[in-house]
Amino acid sequence: MKALVYRGPGILKLEERPDPVVIQPTDAVVRLTTISICGTDLHILKGDVPSISSGRILGHEGVGIVEAVGPEVHDFRPGDRVLISLTTSCGRCSYCRKGMPSHCRSGGWILGNSIDGTQAEFVRIPFADNGLHHLVPEIDDEAAVLLSCNFPTSLECGTMAASVNPGDRVAIVGAGPVGLAALITCRLYSPSEVIMVDLNGHRLQTALTLGATHIVNATGPAAVEAVLALTKGEGVDAAIEAVGIPESFELCQLILAPGGRLANVGVHGKPVSLHLESLWSANLTFTTRLVDASTTARLLRMVRSGQIHPGLLITHRFAFGDILGAYDTFANATREKAGKMVVRVSE
Amino acid sequence: MKALVYRGPGILKLEERPDPVVIQPTDAVVRLTTISICGTDLHILKGDVPSISSGRILGHEGVGIVEAVGPEVHDFRPGDRVLISLTTSCGRCSYCRKGMPSHCRSGGWILGNSIDGTQAEFVRIPFADNGLHHLVPEIDDEAAVLLSCNFPTSLECGTMAASVNPGDRVAIVGAGPVGLAALITCRLYSPSEVIMVDLNGHRLQTALTLGATHIVNATGPAAVEAVLALTKGEGVDAAIEAVGIPESFELCQLILAPGGRLANVGVHGKPVSLHLESLWSANLTFTTRLVDASTTARLLRMVRSGQIHPGLLITHRFAFGDILGAYDTFANATREKAGKMVVRVSE
Amino acid sequence: MKALVYRGPGILKLEERPDPVVIQPTDAVVRLTTISICGTDLHILKGDVPSISSGRILGHEGVGIVEAVGPEVHDFRPGDRVLISLTTSCGRCSYCRKGMPSHCRSGGWILGNSIDGTQAEFVRIPFADNGLHHLVPEIDDEAAVLLSCNFPTSLECGTMAASVNPGDRVAIVGAGPVGLAALITCRLYSPSEVIMVDLNGHRLQTALTLGATHIVNATGPAAVEAVLALTKGEGVDAAIEAVGIPESFELCQLILAPGGRLANVGVHGKPVSLHLESLWSANLTFTTRLVDASTTARLLRMVRSGQIHPGLLITHRFAFGDILGAYDTFANATREKAGKMVVRVSE
Amino acid sequence: MKALVYRGPGILKLEERPDPVVIQPTDAVVRLTTISICGTDLHILKGDVPSISSGRILGHEGVGIVEAVGPEVHDFRPGDRVLISLTTSCGRCSYCRKGMPSHCRSGGWILGNSIDGTQAEFVRIPFADNGLHHLVPEIDDEAAVLLSCNFPTSLECGTMAASVNPGDRVAIVGAGPVGLAALITCRLYSPSEVIMVDLNGHRLQTALTLGATHIVNATGPAAVEAVLALTKGEGVDAAIEAVGIPESFELCQLILAPGGRLANVGVHGKPVSLHLESLWSANLTFTTRLVDASTTARLLRMVRSGQIHPGLLITHRFAFGDILGAYDTFANATREKAGKMVVRVSE
Repeated sequence: MKALVYRGPGILKLEERPDPVVIQPTDAVVRLTTISICGTDLHILKGDVPSISSGRILGHEGVGIVEAVGPEVHDFRPGDRVLISLTTSCGRCSYCRKGMPSHCRSGGWILGNSIDGTQAEFVRIPFADNGLHHLVPEIDDEAAVLLSCNFPTSLECGTMAASVNPGDRVAIVGAGPVGLAALITCRLYSPSEVIMVDLNGHRLQTALTLGATHIVNATGPAAVEAVLALTKGEGVDAAIEAVGIPESFELCQLILAPGGRLANVGVHGKPVSLHLESLWSANLTFTTRLVDASTTARLLRMVRSGQIHPGLLITHRFAFGDILGAYDTFANATREKAGKMVVRVSE
Repeated sequence: MKALVYRGPGILKLEERPDPVVIQPTDAVVRLTTISICGTDLHILKGDVPSISSGRILGHEGVGIVEAVGPEVHDFRPGDRVLISLTTSCGRCSYCRKGMPSHCRSGGWILGNSIDGTQAEFVRIPFADNGLHHLVPEIDDEAAVLLSCNFPTSLECGTMAASVNPGDRVAIVGAGPVGLAALITCRLYSPSEVIMVDLNGHRLQTALTLGATHIVNATGPAAVEAVLALTKGEGVDAAIEAVGIPESFELCQLILAPGGRLANVGVHGKPVSLHLESLWSANLTFTTRLVDASTTARLLRMVRSGQIHPGLLITHRFAFGDILGAYDTFANATREKAGKMVVRVSE
Repeated sequence: MKALVYRGPGILKLEERPDPVVIQPTDAVVRLTTISICGTDLHILKGDVPSISSGRILGHEGVGIVEAVGPEVHDFRPGDRVLISLTTSCGRCSYCRKGMPSHCRSGGWILGNSIDGTQAEFVRIPFADNGLHHLVPEIDDEAAVLLSCNFPTSLECGTMAASVNPGDRVAIVGAGPVGLAALITCRLYSPSEVIMVDLNGHRLQTALTLGATHIVNATGPAAVEAVLALTKGEGVDAAIEAVGIPESFELCQLILAPGGRLANVGVHGKPVSLHLESLWSANLTFTTRLVDASTTARLLRMVRSGQIHPGLLITHRFAFGDILGAYDTFANATREKAGKMVVRVSE
Repeated sequence: MKALVYRGPGILKLEERPDPVVIQPTDAVVRLTTISICGTDLHILKGDVPSISSGRILGHEGVGIVEAVGPEVHDFRPGDRVLISLTTSCGRCSYCRKGMPSHCRSGGWILGNSIDGTQAEFVRIPFADNGLHHLVPEIDDEAAVLLSCNFPTSLECGTMAASVNPGDRVAIVGAGPVGLAALITCRLYSPSEVIMVDLNGHRLQTALTLGATHIVNATGPAAVEAVLALTKGEGVDAAIEAVGIPESFELCQLILAPGGRLANVGVHGKPVSLHLESLWSANLTFTTRLVDASTTARLLRMVRSGQIHPGLLITHRFAFGDILGAYDTFANATREKAGKMVVRVSE
């Protein structure tokens, strides 16, 4: 099969690889129909994720058709149309039993990380009963593929971790696909203000169409000042970091009202400075997390009921043979006015 | 009256000052009988708390007898024996109504900070109905004075912020009075292991007598290694930072199991480095806070029922004329085998 | 002044009474401009609330202008335009300190209950700093008066007590003003389905315009069957009882999925049967409560931001001289197609 | 093998039955060494649990040695010493994924209910990876068997559902093995007062030795009065119903302070009366539940650390051939001064 392979920082190649097969009895092999590229894939490409070694097939987002299953897969059969969750979980280890499958001792985020991923014609999915979701015909591939990682991550690691509540003032730093999905999922809880901060004017315009109440096209002290001005000097109740660089985390710290919550969603490659010399007394809560993907069923229900429209984030569509072009477009988001990149692999 | 006055970093003087009087109708004036010194007072002396200016009477811990009340004080009368809470709150502003009196717009931690404090013969207490607690005779001054700040801070900013639960593994970094009170209040929730970390062997021995299950006399990588060894390499479910320096916060970050909570209690004077490059995916929660003192009534009940014995933390007693000696002893805790310093002001 | 006075079950009279005056230093006297009638007032009239004796001026909903304040009222002055909260709280007793002002030892729900209420030209408001809210000109009387009791009750005792979450299935039994406000406030949390149950077709049509996804015009076993059919036999995640009779509570019990929450909002006059013989194992949570009115400031913010439109519930407007007509219309809601009754008292 | 078989209300027989075998690939067969009798077994015998039909082998508590496993059991092998959890869960259905295995669509409480149970020489355990726990040698059979159902039930459905907190006042109605385990597990959260209510003087004496602060040997209005007198007329913060009859649930309702929580643990055979005519305004929370057994690993850790000693509840030990005698003793608890009955099945 054809697969997109990581060959070290900055280097991706579309290579020929053997088709994956069922290895463990709980495995499924899925033929991919639609995949997408995550901001994390760009972090990987920069070298921010040291667990990924050369030769790895990237990708943890995908929709497809079950091709084969091992004898211990009970809920899926060849031919089933499925959503692949980025979280792999055995369901039996101490972390799974605690309700934290993101840290499953045999799983977690391993797809396109420590095992081969979805940016290929086929992918092997361990513990398939826990990692796949049936798709009804009413949900098309493009809406579904945003539920592999993008929406559960934004909802669980962003909106829910930041405890967004009706009437709250929220700032989201970063208007890429994860930040915009954080905006959409925040709005499920009816904040009074959602301030989007980015340097990409096109993405900020998209944020306005998706319900942001204010936009701030600035960084550093100017951004801090703008957010404080929008909140009468008080700061926000919740801030969501959806970039993954020290500057954006720094910004989030400095715009929180007393009692505020900062939910980090970004994948970071460097330490950040935490201003405890002023924040020790500010009644703040900071969270970091991988996604458990425990909200996937609920998100599917909300797509069906028309409450959310994940496909609105998609700006560019590619054929699989042009996936390197998709990466290039995504990496130059400002120039390309790029939101989410979706790649069609097969029918 | 005599009062202990801050005269800039490193300089304290016992000076003669006019007796305080009722200024606002909600004020009370309290004649102090017993006061104590908080680790925060040492941070102030180091210059870590820039809101404090020269000339300020220090102190936010004290027990005494009401001397005078303004016309809008309803629950206290001259002659009442009272505990002074470090938290001043108007009860009416938006933060008070949200249940966050620590950030009261007219109060919060102001005693011995932006207004004169308790290390004197008399003190003026604003919003006395909210800041004082009646003391029954069964509770002696020495137990009570630990409930001004020390125990509520350890319980609310440490134990409760860290969500300690039965069966948890907990590490407390810093075995001073706040760290030891965190140990005592953690144990109210029955963790299976409480590991105390400090470089002061005497304080660690005290921790063992108060119920610590393990002690680690180390700092830096050696301390990280020791805590991980005690938890089979897994790390702790909750860490409580009770020192206030970058090294101790650094240590706390590195010993958390996935899903862990780090409650910062220490007063910090410098930024710290947060290792998001590895922690972004670790499902951690970090908290900072001032104390609301919302648990004071509950703590008083537990002192009466014999569930906690705050006086166990006291190692040295001084007359008020020797309060500079108390500071000196506290500042040299290792040499002096010092726990909590209590100062007797009057009968 | 003129006032509506309760003279025993079924008997209301519009009488001449002396104007109220400031009695306690924390009192305010408010001249009413707009008031409204609560479903609870109808329960009172039926004799369901034994704490109310003959001679009492009814009413706990109102908007007006401050006429006079006692010397200990700090946040309001004569001439201020204010919203009156139904909850009176001293701010100092153990329940107020616990964040449960609904059970304030000197307050709670006392207006139009154990002290004279708002259905008059003037009303005395105890602890005015805690019981009044400033009104900006952008919020008109009709929106504001719904925030005295109706919306905080529906939000706190209904929606929040039932822990409504995005994607949930919710049933609301009773489509009167409280049930409809529960519908509006539920939708702030984005449930996927909200099923309204009532026997009043007009009110159910209103529910559809306010965002109900399904309506059930039935009672008893037929209503149970209809709700179960709408949820594929599973039942709802949350049920809100907004009537106050045994039949409606019975219905709510029988439509809950395992893990479901039943929030009782209705004022009951009789015991109800709880089917523990089948529900003991069903992982259910039942709640009862008076409103703390702790969400009033947040609701005012959402009215200003245009997120909620309380005035949509108003169907009839009366002059104060015709308040008995307002009661009559409200008591015959089906015949009159009545929602919320608003009464204009003065300019 | 020999097995205890239910033959209709009031009738139990020790019969010869075929040994169970592995049917599903996720099954294990366990040879029992120690079993125990649950209060629920007595409810079954009374006919309170209609899902149980004649011919059923009773019992959901047991410790033993794995005899055989199906090919999809990964964590257990023949010869392993194991604790059997009363909760059977597939780990894949929507309830399991929500963290509510007590309502697993293929499991829940089925052992000794809709499938044959543990009061036999062998038992078949479905989904063995989720339903068994490894036992270390330090934990003896008698401590372990109390963790099949008794302690998780008391902790999850009683103590945790009632949100017991340090300093709380708690009442536990029923001092049988479940009520006493509720006492032990409540104390992990350091309530200031735990009042045990029962009519069995011997059990109440046991409660005192296990840390109850007060006992009430009464029922009905006299019990209400006694509990109120012990709480200065205020009532308790949390009540745990551990009997399962209308009288005990009635009592629990009437002793709650405003804001109180009532956790029902008892298995009920009849509806109860809920006094909404007075409780509608009392800010109460009522809970019912089956146990998820999600705390079993934590309880095992606390047994190992010496924090809890489940074996203290055992008063009588029987050989398996005399299990009918064990039922008889348990059913006549007052006469026999009976606590928990343990039955030794094999070495």
